[in-house]
Amino acid sequence: MTNIAAAITEVKALLGQRLNTSKSVCELHGQNETYFPKMLPNAVAFPHNTLEVSKVVKICEKYYCPIIPWGVGTSLEGHALALHGGITLNMSEMNNTLEVNTQDMLAVVQPGITREILNKELRSTGLFFSVDPGANATLGGMAATRASGTTSVLYGTMRENVLAMEIVLADGKIIRTGTRAKKSSAGYDLNKLFVGSEGTLGIITELTVALKGQPEAISAAVCDFESIDDAVNVVIMAIQLGIPMARIELIDEISIRAINQYSKLDYPEKPHLFMEFHGSITSVSGQAETILSIAKDFQVGGFKWSTKSEELNKLWAARHQAYYATKALFPNQIGMSTDICVPISKLAKAIKDTQSDLKKYNVTGSIIGHVGDGNYHTLLFCDPTDPDDLKLNKLLANRMAKRALAVGGTVTGEHGIGIGKLNLMEQEHGSSLSIMTDLKKLFDPKNIMNPGKMINLSSKQIDD
Amino acid sequence: MTNIAAAITEVKALLGQRLNTSKSVCELHGQNETYFPKMLPNAVAFPHNTLEVSKVVKICEKYYCPIIPWGVGTSLEGHALALHGGITLNMSEMNNTLEVNTQDMLAVVQPGITREILNKELRSTGLFFSVDPGANATLGGMAATRASGTTSVLYGTMRENVLAMEIVLADGKIIRTGTRAKKSSAGYDLNKLFVGSEGTLGIITELTVALKGQPEAISAAVCDFESIDDAVNVVIMAIQLGIPMARIELIDEISIRAINQYSKLDYPEKPHLFMEFHGSITSVSGQAETILSIAKDFQVGGFKWSTKSEELNKLWAARHQAYYATKALFPNQIGMSTDICVPISKLAKAIKDTQSDLKKYNVTGSIIGHVGDGNYHTLLFCDPTDPDDLKLNKLLANRMAKRALAVGGTVTGEHGIGIGKLNLMEQEHGSSLSIMTDLKKLFDPKNIMNPGKMINLSSKQIDD
Repeated sequence: MTNIAAAITEVKALLGQRLNTSKSVCELHGQNETYFPKMLPNAVAFPHNTLEVSKVVKICEKYYCPIIPWGVGTSLEGHALALHGGITLNMSEMNNTLEVNTQDMLAVVQPGITREILNKELRSTGLFFSVDPGANATLGGMAATRASGTTSVLYGTMRENVLAMEIVLADGKIIRTGTRAKKSSAGYDLNKLFVGSEGTLGIITELTVALKGQPEAISAAVCDFESIDDAVNVVIMAIQLGIPMARIELIDEISIRAINQYSKLDYPEKPHLFMEFHGSITSVSGQAETILSIAKDFQVGGFKWSTKSEELNKLWAARHQAYYATKALFPNQIGMSTDICVPISKLAKAIKDTQSDLKKYNVTGSIIGHVGDGNYHTLLFCDPTDPDDLKLNKLLANRMAKRALAVGGTVTGEHGIGIGKLNLMEQEHGSSLSIMTDLKKLFDPKNIMNPGKMINLSSKQIDD
Repeated sequence: MTNIAAAITEVKALLGQRLNTSKSVCELHGQNETYFPKMLPNAVAFPHNTLEVSKVVKICEKYYCPIIPWGVGTSLEGHALALHGGITLNMSEMNNTLEVNTQDMLAVVQPGITREILNKELRSTGLFFSVDPGANATLGGMAATRASGTTSVLYGTMRENVLAMEIVLADGKIIRTGTRAKKSSAGYDLNKLFVGSEGTLGIITELTVALKGQPEAISAAVCDFESIDDAVNVVIMAIQLGIPMARIELIDEISIRAINQYSKLDYPEKPHLFMEFHGSITSVSGQAETILSIAKDFQVGGFKWSTKSEELNKLWAARHQAYYATKALFPNQIGMSTDICVPISKLAKAIKDTQSDLKKYNVTGSIIGHVGDGNYHTLLFCDPTDPDDLKLNKLLANRMAKRALAVGGTVTGEHGIGIGKLNLMEQEHGSSLSIMTDLKKLFDPKNIMNPGKMINLSSKQIDD
C-alpha cells in the first residue's frame, strides 16, 4: 500500500524546487545529535504555509507515506529521524512572527522560528519568551517535545506556555486548539494533547505562546560544594522554602571540567550550582542572600554573585554549552543523555543512586540538571565500536528510569520519548499506554505521522 | 438495548443499601443550582472505593445505563443532571485524604472531599490547596469542570493544580494519569485530557493535587469606583505591570447591594474591587501601595486595607456569598450565569458591551468576576413563568459569547459546558469539535458516561 515514490512525485509537482531528494539534503535530515544511527528520509519538503503543509499531508495520506516534521534537529531522542523513510517536512521557511501583543503578553509565531530569534525580535518590547532548553531549538519542535529547560522552575514548560496552536491533522484537515484567554473550561483540552505529541498526531503550523515581562533586575550566583549531595540539599531547601528562583542548575565536576576547557573558564573542579534571580533590585539581592545563608549550612566553597549582564551572558552561555563541551571532553566516545524527573524530596537519593551505579558499573558519566524541577541529565559515554558498551549504558538508563518511577517520577522530564525511550513507555504508563495507542490510531489511522516515535504501531523496532 | 432496570438490579446486588432508588434521594440528585428543570436519575449509588466504581461501571456498560458522577451538586451548567436517567454516582463517601506530602507539597485525595475540608485538614501543615471557586465543591467535581475561582490569577486553575489522577474508564478499566514530577515529556498528556472532561470520558476516583505554602503575610484591600470602567482599568494596569495579586475581584453595584443585604454589610453601593496580596510583610504592603497609586489615577473612592484575618475572612465570605446573595435580591426570578473569559486587554470593552446589552434589552443582570484572569460572570435574571424571558437572557449570553470568541477568548472560563453551553461548542471550536466528538466515541462508545453533557451524541436536546 505504501508508495513513497508516488507521494514524492505529487509533492514535487506541488512544491517544485522546495521538494529536495538530493542525497546531501536527505543525509543532513537523517542524522541526529546523539547515538542513533542515520535514518534518511526519501525527500525533504520546505513548505511555506499551512495550506501547503495540508496539501503535502493529503498526498502522503493517499500513499501511506511517512511524514517527519523537522525543526533544527536538536532532539536528543531521535524524534526527527526517518525511521520508515518518507518525507521530512523542514519547517525552517515557516519562521515568521505573525503578531506580538504586548498588552496580552503573547506572540503568534510559525513553528520554524527559533527561540533566540524570537527573543531578539522581542528585545524592544520589554517582554521575553521564557522557555529555554539550551539548544536554539524551534518553537514547533519545543512544543512537540513539551520542552523546558533552565528557566522552567519559575516560568513553566511548553505545557504552560503554549496557549493555542494551529494543527494539520493526518487527513490534511486544519484545526485550531486553545484560546488567548488565561483559562477555559470549554471542552477537552486538545491544546495540551498536542503539546508533547512529538508530531505523531498532527503537525504544528502555528503557535500562540505566552510572553513574560523582562524583570526589573536579574542577578546570578555561582557557588561550589565539596559534594553533589550538599549542592542538591541546598536546592531542595530553597525549593521547599519557596524562594522564587528563575534558574537553579546543578553542574557536576566532570561537566565543570568540560565547561572550563570548552569555554576557557576557570571554575574550581567541584560540583556547582548556577542560579539566577529575577525581580526587583531589592528582591534579587534578598533571594541571593537567602540562598547564601542556606548554602553556608552545606559547606559551600566559593559564592559569587553578579548583576552585570556580560557576566550573566557568559555564565549561561557556558551552561548551555555543557552538553557539547562534555561530548568534546570524550571525543572518541558517544554520549547518551538520561532525563529523569522526580519529586523534589527524592532528588538527593536519585542522584546518589546514579553516582553509585556509575561507580559500580565503571561507566563514565556526567551529571547536570534543572534540579529545581527535580530533573537532571546523566550523560553516559561509551565506545562506539563496542555494542556491549552502549547496552550497558542503556541498562544504567533503565535502572535510573525504574527508580524514578518507583518514587512517582517520570522517565523523561523534557527530552521526550522519540525512539530512544520507547521501551520505557509501558513502564511509565502501564495500562494507560493502550489508551495512548488508541489515540494514536484515532488521529493517525494510517500511521503516517512521524511513525515509530512515542507509540510504536509497526513491527519495526530500534534495538534496545 | 438500554436496560436501566437490569443495571439497577445488579448494582443493588453489589452495593445493597448503598444503591438508593427512593424518590426523595433521586429528587435530591435531580435538581441543580440554576435554571434547568429537574432531571432525575433512576437510582443513586454511593461507592466506597475504586473497585466498586469499576464494578458499577462494568454493569452499566453491559446495559447501556447512563452514569452521572455527583460531587455536591454546585455545578452551574447542569453537569450532574440525569438528562437520560440512569445511575448517579454520589462520591461523597469516597472523601478521604490518602496522603499529605509536605516535602513535595502535594496531597492525594479521593474525589468526594470538599476543598474546605481539605484545607481544614491541611491547616497545621503550613500548606493549603489554592483553587477556590467560592462554592464548597468537591475536588472531583472541580477537576471534572476544570474549575478555578478567586485565587487562580496567582495560583492557577485545576488544570495547573491536578498533578495526577486515577480514572475508571467506560469499560471499567482503571488507569492512572500524570505523575508526581513537576514536569514530564513522556507520552500524550492524558491527565490534562481528563481534567475538564466533565465525567464524559471516565470517572475520577483519586486525585493528586499540588499544595501551596501559606504565605508569611496576607493583606486585603477594598476600594470603590464611580464606574466599572475605572475599576476594570485598574485591574488591566495592575496585571500588565505584573503585580502578583492573589485575588482581584470585580463586584458591581447590584452585587454590592445584594452582599450588603445578605451579609449585613455597608459597602457603598458602587462598583468595587476586592483584592488580596500574599507574600512577605513588606511585599504585601508594597503591592497594596502600588495598587492604590494606580487606583488614584482612576478616581478611586474609598480604599481600605487590612491584614487582620477576621476581616479577611469576612470579606471573602461576603464575596463567596455573592451568587446566593444576588439570587436572594431577586427572589421570584431565576438566575443564569454567563462565564466568558477574554484576553486582559479586551476586558474593559467586553464588560462595556455587556452593560450596553443589559440596558438595550432591559434585562436585570449583575456583573462580578475574576477580572485578573479576564473572566467575569453576568448573572441574568428572568421571570420563571415567561419562557420568552429566559430566551432573551440566552440571547444575551450568546451575544457575550460571540464577542468573547471574536477577540480570542472563550465562552466559559471556569463553569464548563454541561448542558447549558452545548450550543456554544461549535462556535468556540469550529472544526475541532469533530475531534472532540471522536474522542468521546473512542472513550465511551456506548455513550454511558454522563451522556448529553459537553458532547451531544444523541438526538435528545435541551431546548435553547
